[in-house]
Amino acid sequence: MARPGTRNEGTSKATRPRAAGATTRRGARPRLAKAGKHVYFFGGGKADGDRTMRDLLGGKGAGLAEMTRAGLPVPPGFTISTDVCALFYAQGGRVPDAVEREMAAGLERLEKLAGARLGASDGPLLLSVRSGAKFSMPGMMDTILNLGLNDETVEGLKARTGNGRFAYDSYRRFLQMFGSVVLQVPKDAFDQKFESVKRLRGARLDTDLDEQALRDVVVEYQHVVRQHTDREFPQDPREQLRMARDAVFSSWNNPRAIEYRRIYEIPDDIGTAVNVQTMVFGNTGERSATGVGFTRNPATGAKEFYGEFLVNAQGEDVVAGIRTPQPIRELERLMPEAYAQLREYTSTLERHYQDVQDFEFTIEDGRLYMLQTRSGKRTGYAAVVIATDLVDEGVVEPRQALLLVEPASLSQLLAPVFDPAAWKAVAVATRGLPASPGAACGQAVFSADEAVRWSEHGKRVVLVRKETAPDDIHGMYVAEGILTATGGMTSHAAVVGRQMGKPAVVGAGGLSIDEAGRTLRIGDQTIGEGDWLSFDGLSGEVKIARIATRPSEILQVLAGEMRPESSDIHRRFTRLLEWADRERRLEIRANADLPDQAALAYAFGARGIGLCRTEHMFFGEDRLPIVQRMILSQREADRRQALAELLPLQREDFYGVFKAMHGCPVTIRTIDPPLHEFLPKREEVMVDIARLEAAGKTGRELEEKLALLRRVEQLHEFNPMLGHRGVRVGITFPEITEMQARAIFEAACRLAREGQAVVPEIMIPLVSDVRELRDQKAIVDRVAAEVTKAHGVEIPYLVGTMIEVPRGALTADSIAREARFFSFGTNDMTQLAFGFSRDDIGKFLPAYRQKKILERDPFASLDVEGVGELVRIAVEKGRRARPDLALGVCGEHGGDPSSIHFFEEVGLDYVSASPYRVPVARLAAAQAALKTRVGD
Amino acid sequence: MARPGTRNEGTSKATRPRAAGATTRRGARPRLAKAGKHVYFFGGGKADGDRTMRDLLGGKGAGLAEMTRAGLPVPPGFTISTDVCALFYAQGGRVPDAVEREMAAGLERLEKLAGARLGASDGPLLLSVRSGAKFSMPGMMDTILNLGLNDETVEGLKARTGNGRFAYDSYRRFLQMFGSVVLQVPKDAFDQKFESVKRLRGARLDTDLDEQALRDVVVEYQHVVRQHTDREFPQDPREQLRMARDAVFSSWNNPRAIEYRRIYEIPDDIGTAVNVQTMVFGNTGERSATGVGFTRNPATGAKEFYGEFLVNAQGEDVVAGIRTPQPIRELERLMPEAYAQLREYTSTLERHYQDVQDFEFTIEDGRLYMLQTRSGKRTGYAAVVIATDLVDEGVVEPRQALLLVEPASLSQLLAPVFDPAAWKAVAVATRGLPASPGAACGQAVFSADEAVRWSEHGKRVVLVRKETAPDDIHGMYVAEGILTATGGMTSHAAVVGRQMGKPAVVGAGGLSIDEAGRTLRIGDQTIGEGDWLSFDGLSGEVKIARIATRPSEILQVLAGEMRPESSDIHRRFTRLLEWADRERRLEIRANADLPDQAALAYAFGARGIGLCRTEHMFFGEDRLPIVQRMILSQREADRRQALAELLPLQREDFYGVFKAMHGCPVTIRTIDPPLHEFLPKREEVMVDIARLEAAGKTGRELEEKLALLRRVEQLHEFNPMLGHRGVRVGITFPEITEMQARAIFEAACRLAREGQAVVPEIMIPLVSDVRELRDQKAIVDRVAAEVTKAHGVEIPYLVGTMIEVPRGALTADSIAREARFFSFGTNDMTQLAFGFSRDDIGKFLPAYRQKKILERDPFASLDVEGVGELVRIAVEKGRRARPDLALGVCGEHGGDPSSIHFFEEVGLDYVSASPYRVPVARLAAAQAALKTRVGD
Repeated sequence: MARPGTRNEGTSKATRPRAAGATTRRGARPRLAKAGKHVYFFGGGKADGDRTMRDLLGGKGAGLAEMTRAGLPVPPGFTISTDVCALFYAQGGRVPDAVEREMAAGLERLEKLAGARLGASDGPLLLSVRSGAKFSMPGMMDTILNLGLNDETVEGLKARTGNGRFAYDSYRRFLQMFGSVVLQVPKDAFDQKFESVKRLRGARLDTDLDEQALRDVVVEYQHVVRQHTDREFPQDPREQLRMARDAVFSSWNNPRAIEYRRIYEIPDDIGTAVNVQTMVFGNTGERSATGVGFTRNPATGAKEFYGEFLVNAQGEDVVAGIRTPQPIRELERLMPEAYAQLREYTSTLERHYQDVQDFEFTIEDGRLYMLQTRSGKRTGYAAVVIATDLVDEGVVEPRQALLLVEPASLSQLLAPVFDPAAWKAVAVATRGLPASPGAACGQAVFSADEAVRWSEHGKRVVLVRKETAPDDIHGMYVAEGILTATGGMTSHAAVVGRQMGKPAVVGAGGLSIDEAGRTLRIGDQTIGEGDWLSFDGLSGEVKIARIATRPSEILQVLAGEMRPESSDIHRRFTRLLEWADRERRLEIRANADLPDQAALAYAFGARGIGLCRTEHMFFGEDRLPIVQRMILSQREADRRQALAELLPLQREDFYGVFKAMHGCPVTIRTIDPPLHEFLPKREEVMVDIARLEAAGKTGRELEEKLALLRRVEQLHEFNPMLGHRGVRVGITFPEITEMQARAIFEAACRLAREGQAVVPEIMIPLVSDVRELRDQKAIVDRVAAEVTKAHGVEIPYLVGTMIEVPRGALTADSIAREARFFSFGTNDMTQLAFGFSRDDIGKFLPAYRQKKILERDPFASLDVEGVGELVRIAVEKGRRARPDLALGVCGEHGGDPSSIHFFEEVGLDYVSASPYRVPVARLAAAQAALKTRVGD
Repeated sequence: MARPGTRNEGTSKATRPRAAGATTRRGARPRLAKAGKHVYFFGGGKADGDRTMRDLLGGKGAGLAEMTRAGLPVPPGFTISTDVCALFYAQGGRVPDAVEREMAAGLERLEKLAGARLGASDGPLLLSVRSGAKFSMPGMMDTILNLGLNDETVEGLKARTGNGRFAYDSYRRFLQMFGSVVLQVPKDAFDQKFESVKRLRGARLDTDLDEQALRDVVVEYQHVVRQHTDREFPQDPREQLRMARDAVFSSWNNPRAIEYRRIYEIPDDIGTAVNVQTMVFGNTGERSATGVGFTRNPATGAKEFYGEFLVNAQGEDVVAGIRTPQPIRELERLMPEAYAQLREYTSTLERHYQDVQDFEFTIEDGRLYMLQTRSGKRTGYAAVVIATDLVDEGVVEPRQALLLVEPASLSQLLAPVFDPAAWKAVAVATRGLPASPGAACGQAVFSADEAVRWSEHGKRVVLVRKETAPDDIHGMYVAEGILTATGGMTSHAAVVGRQMGKPAVVGAGGLSIDEAGRTLRIGDQTIGEGDWLSFDGLSGEVKIARIATRPSEILQVLAGEMRPESSDIHRRFTRLLEWADRERRLEIRANADLPDQAALAYAFGARGIGLCRTEHMFFGEDRLPIVQRMILSQREADRRQALAELLPLQREDFYGVFKAMHGCPVTIRTIDPPLHEFLPKREEVMVDIARLEAAGKTGRELEEKLALLRRVEQLHEFNPMLGHRGVRVGITFPEITEMQARAIFEAACRLAREGQAVVPEIMIPLVSDVRELRDQKAIVDRVAAEVTKAHGVEIPYLVGTMIEVPRGALTADSIAREARFFSFGTNDMTQLAFGFSRDDIGKFLPAYRQKKILERDPFASLDVEGVGELVRIAVEKGRRARPDLALGVCGEHGGDPSSIHFFEEVGLDYVSASPYRVPVARLAAAQAALKTRVGD
């Protein structure tokens, strides 16, 4: 069994085979930008840039350079680098003169290579000007095609091609794009004119218009521009080029691009490149076409050529839906030669890039040009299929395949899914935060007790609550999914939902819930108890309907309901994660409180429990009354009596958890929540009393309520998160710690006698000073000695602490002298570092996101700058004081891929994630190890 | 006007004269302990130690060494150093052999010098064995006198002195002390025997017993020892010495010593020394005596010889109260020669130590011996009188005088006082935390409104509440004092009490308050509205009575009710603080929200406002309804309308505050509390609704309550301290920041036109990320430009931030790029660093104090290790990013002397304290500067 404390010694990991020198992907180390160089040429089989330069050239620019180098037919051009975008904004929307000069030189070189000049009246050079950031932002930024046309050059184009219709079609497209994008003329104004010309001519399709009709369109368009801008359409092609370039840079900050970056967490400061490229034309006639495709099916991963195209069209026509494109297979029939070339080129690209490619092409008079290639986006399911196939085909090695799957997307393979057609058929009623993936469909209930009652009658229910609390657990457990009106991505409903693998949509502000009245309003629709609801935990969409779902195959296999051999995806999933296990350095543990959760975590590959929350064991139906009796006791003796009743129950839980983990380490946290969480809410008791008094009731019922209120008042806290909880409970009620330690060691002794090794790790929460830990450790040590002596068994164990309070991190050196391990509680640490209550953050988080004050929810993805600094301080101070200190993380961030990357860098020993996130963590840890090694 | 931003440049401070080389007090640099040396001899005019070695020798040991060196008649002996105490405990209650050997050598030297041997049957050497820690802990640890006596040596003593009564009196004393202290025989057992012998002999006083009677006592005492210990009294003097020494070391950890250290915040690990000294005898007859005294009156500071003595007695008789001692003046009559010597020696000691001395002496057969000298404890009043007198007498320089006054004790000079005799006459009913010094006496009221009503009828009231809240301010303002059942030293009642200079006793757990029923129970007494209560904010004692008070003279002078010339103490107080101003480096500002507070702060010597809390301006009667209307508005336009009504009111406040500060900097904090603080409490509204519903009421009243509840529910927070407050309010409601900025700049413009310079410093609270500050700064800058343009006036201003959130400290470098100043909000920082809510800490703080997990309340005295680390990080990162960053502190710690010492060390520019703490801060800052310079 690998112990976290032995990371520097020989462990199971150290014996793993590792291919020598195989730590970097071929050519993956990026080339450096050349100082002062901003314009990167490509053409004639040579390119200044290459695929590694996505930071500088954007995805499109790097792809064009790479394809040019590989000898593929790419129209020549140059890329203006992303750092010019920053300069452009820094200078108030102006490109520096040095860049203007570089660009002029690039243009000259392009004219030479193309044998045509921009603005030449005989056979002019025409250009496309397109955006291209490091990360694909499809359709968000602007593009100009056919640049260089004016009243004179259009005639030159006609003369050169002998195709007047083509020339004027290109000109009217240019006028429209330039007019709307650069000159800000409403697109509508052009569309109206175009439609009126089509009407006049009785044309159905754009292609039905002849040269004369298109000439009329050009005249009308120029009129539109004059009307809206009070000036003539710019006729100077060099001025057109400068204006188009600046418009592309400006489009980086258009509202839809900003919103897109917010959603996909793309940094705002990386900027876009501008690609200036010689035009090729898919609209010269029936031997021309334009299209897009994937080398494999991005939805299923199947190895099939996938895409669509349009004959006699330009690029944007395909996506704009003006005409319905044809499936790409039909290209083979229409243009067999070009099709064969395309298959060959794209297969080459897939092998070259060692990944599925998403490409764009144009065929001009039968000649194929490649216009873009990039890694194709895919579903989680497809990602796993593709990664394993590429290994089997010998295209990539397993460690490369690991980098082809987005860790978070693995959750998709575990969640039940809606039948896609049935889902599409119903409209979205409202949206919330997609807190826990999966499809939930059931009858609405509004309390945990109702959920249990309905489910006992064999009903499928979804639990709808304003928010959930620990005493809703039993209802959450039986529900198909959880839907709440308030709370964020780490609210109780979200955390428990993910831990249980239940779909959850939380913080759906559009819900107006009357829990007492058992109704829910969404807009003007009212949903009562028993009405059907469906929601998708991956999209956050909520629908008022019963929509069919099906369980994930992988879970069916894990549950023994399906044989492993009959599930292709289970086999692939397992292989991929085994590869991941070979590469990762971080150990993976799970947060699991009960034996069934522990067993599931083990099945998912967790080799240890990083967080077993003992208080969840207190909420069982058979336990809560005893717990309440303990809390209401005024005397220690009464408390001890109640604790004595809890002891065997908790011992049984620990026994089950230990057993389920087959000898792997189990970290048990002593009691953490404030005691009032186990009692009814203060305002509820107050209202009850007010009702009794108003009804003139006196006597025993009122007396009891008043007594309860007194105790609840005593325990009431203004800020429970900062109150009497964590180690503070153990210090004021040492008998609770004592009972818990006893239950742990008695369970361990029983297992030891049964021949199973157990190493309990006892974790004291919320420590801010070493003396708190010392106090609790003394109790644990004493009980351990008593129990092991009584049983005549030696139980090795560790006592450690959570580091979750800033002061704990800041004084980690003194704490490490008492603690054998630290487990970072990054949830609480985030709350305390920011001073944000995660239950209250909903009030201002939307404004913070909208104003770009917070780019990401720090409860979902670790704040590396602030919270991460505390982690770094604690790691450094802790290891200095105790070199063999074991370090892990058990906050929600333990299952978040980008946070895992940070934990790898900072050198933790393990991460602990909720069971359903264990596969995600295994893969993310492998990627972090690979990337960190590359970055060394 | 000195600006905090210019600390490294020439400021008003830099021009102050400073005597060259005068940074250390004579001989104040401590000598170092010699490695391996543990026993320090003194005698024959020479001593191994001296006054600087209090750490090692304890106060008594250092004093004995110093007096010996000064040639005073000190019985010779040796001191076993404090580090042996640590060794003693580390070795399980054993002194290391090396120390035993050193001690034996010391004893041999002592025997030589004394010309007598321990245990010699003819004229034996007798010893005293006494404790002595660095800090005086009177009566807490153990003492043995007359050691060396046994059945044989007592006869030798008789033979040598020819005084059998004396010899047996000494022996019975030794048996009793050794028996009870070392052998743990109950003291009672000896007392009973002694009384029975006295009864038998018909003796009234101890001195009435003759030799034979005392011989009987000795026999009886030995019998008592045999009975209780099952062994004979140890007859070997060397064994007696070892046992006595170990008993003294053990007494360091007796319960009363531990409790004493807890109360007086003396560290547990410094240990005690043991002083072994040749006995001299005050009990040899009528020409012998023993006594204690002070060189000046420690209560009033008057220059008068002060003390008491007993003839024919040993030391402990004076304090034990067996006989009533005589005033020391009478010694002049009885033993004029010894008295003259004593006056001379103690005067010498006062000049030598440059401070009032508290001394012990014994006269043996007319010969004076000095047994102890140390600085005398004194009241705040006496401290000021003595310090100024010593300067006038040329004994000390002003900068030395500053070190003779405990800064916190200055508060005593400002608080109203009870008539001492009247106070003593009434029993203490209960106790609470002494939160704000002063004597409060008034009729009990249980709500702020009642307080106002009663005071309008000319009644003096004390406000009794479970706890206070911002909406109690008006009641607190009119009350004589504030008494609460819950809350700690920085609870609302405590903070406001100090700020208002109102006596406050808080967290008095013995109070059982029924606010609705307007009664208070203490034990079995019930106090109703209008009953008289008195309490003392300096001791925390509460009494059920009307007890006369009188206001402090200094406040009478400040209020213009007394002419400065007629107040001696005001003149001294002012002089002392002027000396302090010459020495301190830290600027002193005040926390003041309203013009009258600002004026008071200025009178107390604050030269700037470090924290003007704008929300306190919202709680006025004329304002709260407008504020509530703003909060209940759903639309921005309605909010703006309400804010427009608040604008002139707030502008008037700022105008008044600016004016009161005469051009000194004024730091104004934008809105900080969560908005729900301005609305009724959620549970109150819920109870109202329950009552209305139960009464069958419908209609408008219920509707309005329900609407109010909805908004209150929306604003309700689980953890308000971590919720929607501080900069978060300004970000979500930018119109509030805008109004506040407008009020500030309009007020500044008005003053500027009137010819007064104003430099507003606008402070954004609770910043955790630079982008929050940037957002609010943009609003302030825009409004500043608008207002100053409209008024045609230039207003210099600074925008800065509070550093109170850990993440703010951790990212101080990026924040400093936007902030001109940081003001440390150490209250919130303490809450967040520990994860302690100061409102909830009462639930576990007692256990933490008792278990020694926390030695001090971190809200009263800055936690240097953890919170201080955040301050250091922020100072370092902030100054690195902006070298001229101004740094201050505005948390409660700004008025705490030990915290001020830390702020001096860490290099802040200013501290800001509540007005009544400004004098304390001035003095503490001077001491910190002096001590830091010494420590350089």
